[in-house]
Amino acid sequence: MHDLIPHISSLQDATLKAELQQCIDGKTKPLGALGRLETLMMQLGLIQGTLRPQLREPQMMVFAGDHGLAAQGVSAYPSDVTWQMVENFLAGGAAVSVLARQHGLEMTVVDAGVAHDFAPRAGLVIAKIACGTQDASEQAAMSMDQCATAIAAGRKLLGQRPGNALLLGEMGIGNTSSAALLLARLADLPVADCAGRGTGLDDAGLTHKISVLEKVLQRHPEAREALPALAAFGGFEIAMMVGAVLQAAQENRVIVVDGFISSSAVLVASRLRPAVLERCVFAHQSEERGHALMLQAMAPAESALRPQPLLNLGLRLGEGSGAALAWPLLESACRVMAEMASFASAGVSEKA
Amino acid sequence: MHDLIPHISSLQDATLKAELQQCIDGKTKPLGALGRLETLMMQLGLIQGTLRPQLREPQMMVFAGDHGLAAQGVSAYPSDVTWQMVENFLAGGAAVSVLARQHGLEMTVVDAGVAHDFAPRAGLVIAKIACGTQDASEQAAMSMDQCATAIAAGRKLLGQRPGNALLLGEMGIGNTSSAALLLARLADLPVADCAGRGTGLDDAGLTHKISVLEKVLQRHPEAREALPALAAFGGFEIAMMVGAVLQAAQENRVIVVDGFISSSAVLVASRLRPAVLERCVFAHQSEERGHALMLQAMAPAESALRPQPLLNLGLRLGEGSGAALAWPLLESACRVMAEMASFASAGVSEKA
Repeated sequence: MHDLIPHISSLQDATLKAELQQCIDGKTKPLGALGRLETLMMQLGLIQGTLRPQLREPQMMVFAGDHGLAAQGVSAYPSDVTWQMVENFLAGGAAVSVLARQHGLEMTVVDAGVAHDFAPRAGLVIAKIACGTQDASEQAAMSMDQCATAIAAGRKLLGQRPGNALLLGEMGIGNTSSAALLLARLADLPVADCAGRGTGLDDAGLTHKISVLEKVLQRHPEAREALPALAAFGGFEIAMMVGAVLQAAQENRVIVVDGFISSSAVLVASRLRPAVLERCVFAHQSEERGHALMLQAMAPAESALRPQPLLNLGLRLGEGSGAALAWPLLESACRVMAEMASFASAGVSEKA
Repeated sequence: MHDLIPHISSLQDATLKAELQQCIDGKTKPLGALGRLETLMMQLGLIQGTLRPQLREPQMMVFAGDHGLAAQGVSAYPSDVTWQMVENFLAGGAAVSVLARQHGLEMTVVDAGVAHDFAPRAGLVIAKIACGTQDASEQAAMSMDQCATAIAAGRKLLGQRPGNALLLGEMGIGNTSSAALLLARLADLPVADCAGRGTGLDDAGLTHKISVLEKVLQRHPEAREALPALAAFGGFEIAMMVGAVLQAAQENRVIVVDGFISSSAVLVASRLRPAVLERCVFAHQSEERGHALMLQAMAPAESALRPQPLLNLGLRLGEGSGAALAWPLLESACRVMAEMASFASAGVSEKA
């Protein structure tokens, strides 16, 4: 466990925090007038331990995997869409491909366990744990060994990437079910509050999905802690994201969290190492039911670690598309810190 | 009046709208999964009359002016900050300067009526109507002639700029008072609900501001329509923005509206020509009290023209900073329309 899950220290540095606040407050604007951008400036400064945070070579990593549970009809789309979308990512035609190109994000697609053989090519890392997880309504989605292997692979892959920022993306037909199960179990919530329409289930489909998920939870009463729950409910792409998040946090990279699935990986990682959250920027509040509850489950309401998503655009696509859309705000925060004048430097009168 | 206020036609084109929806729905994503970005794709397509909207040479225009009413102590900052901030804009050190640079927005600062003589230089247009407005608690902020001159100047200036997108910015100590007065009068709301802390008034300052604004409203009972209200309450920068908005709308440019002050110019323009709103993208929901009410006052709740701001980041800076922060989302909308694959082109299976 201690080899698998790295120690992650808290970023509390009262002196730096005070210096950052002074720097932010000295900019030519009323106190606090840049709102959420100011808390982002503070967070980036604390993560990087500097008054001049800079973002270098941001990595969009899109983890893909298939889910045995999809056989139970929990998704509006067939499992083949997982590999088809991987091909679409690599061909540059998916939403996340377009947005990553727009913002200069290097994109890597990781086959964490897709039920398909991909031809090797640039931009694709084949790190398959298996060709899809097992059906969690019948047995654990993966063994504890597979779970550990996936986490270790995620850590290693992230460690090999350059840069100081990770943007989380994912693809996997059926993975809103895994995320809902993880939320229900780790936050002790009714699964009906955690499960949503995913790629577009109708009312009957959602009712069916919830009844399947209830059975899955009953099937795995022992999976109460983060890692056993991850193994029981899957998937490989989520487990590998957990590893990438832990490694990125240990290296003090900025972690840009996308939507419901990416957040479920952060939920697991933060149950193992709460200080992970200090490195996480939550890109958006997803439209997928359960995401608001998931963000709340990360930390108490009064905690500074309670996620405050940057965007609220009714997104429910995943892939990392929301993380990519929020990315320019992180760049803005760095530029404002570096380039915006102070009252003193610009000769502007202060508040009367 | 008809020379001053151009005719602006509605963009309703049912055929194009259906084609745009088909194009959006055919992209490789669940129906509606890109949320607010999809309505933006639709709007940009309708404004430009094409399935492939493109943004060219976006113009950030920052209109600045001083306010006679500032003498009544309605702002936390002295009036000198208006010209000092204009110098800061031009030196590249203000928030909007930094953000415009980040996103490749050409920035023009327009002296619509600052009480200061600026040395001419690149990026500054001196179009002063007067050295600040009159004190609206004693007389109309400007004459109807001045108001018409300012609107005409705004139209002309915008018409001279290249590109197909206008981002609205402004600076003027005291101008949250003008905006609150315009909202209170044009939407028939209590001014206490419309007035906020602006650059940072404390409780006593806000109470004083509201009592001043109540007297101003009582002083001008006849100023009930859009143009008389604009003349009575000011300011020159708002009047010039009204002109720029009208001209941009007539030319089918995309108009990116910033916060409370920019929105007040759009409120006036939309009372004159409601179809202006079809060209407006509301960048953000400001933290300034009154902005939410102002957006609601633009159009009924059930109307497709009711503004849906893109961002909600607790901003209350003005300058055009919120418009600049939202700009990449407009670029994303265009890129997704142009570059994202369809189910057919990518060979991805559709919903079961």
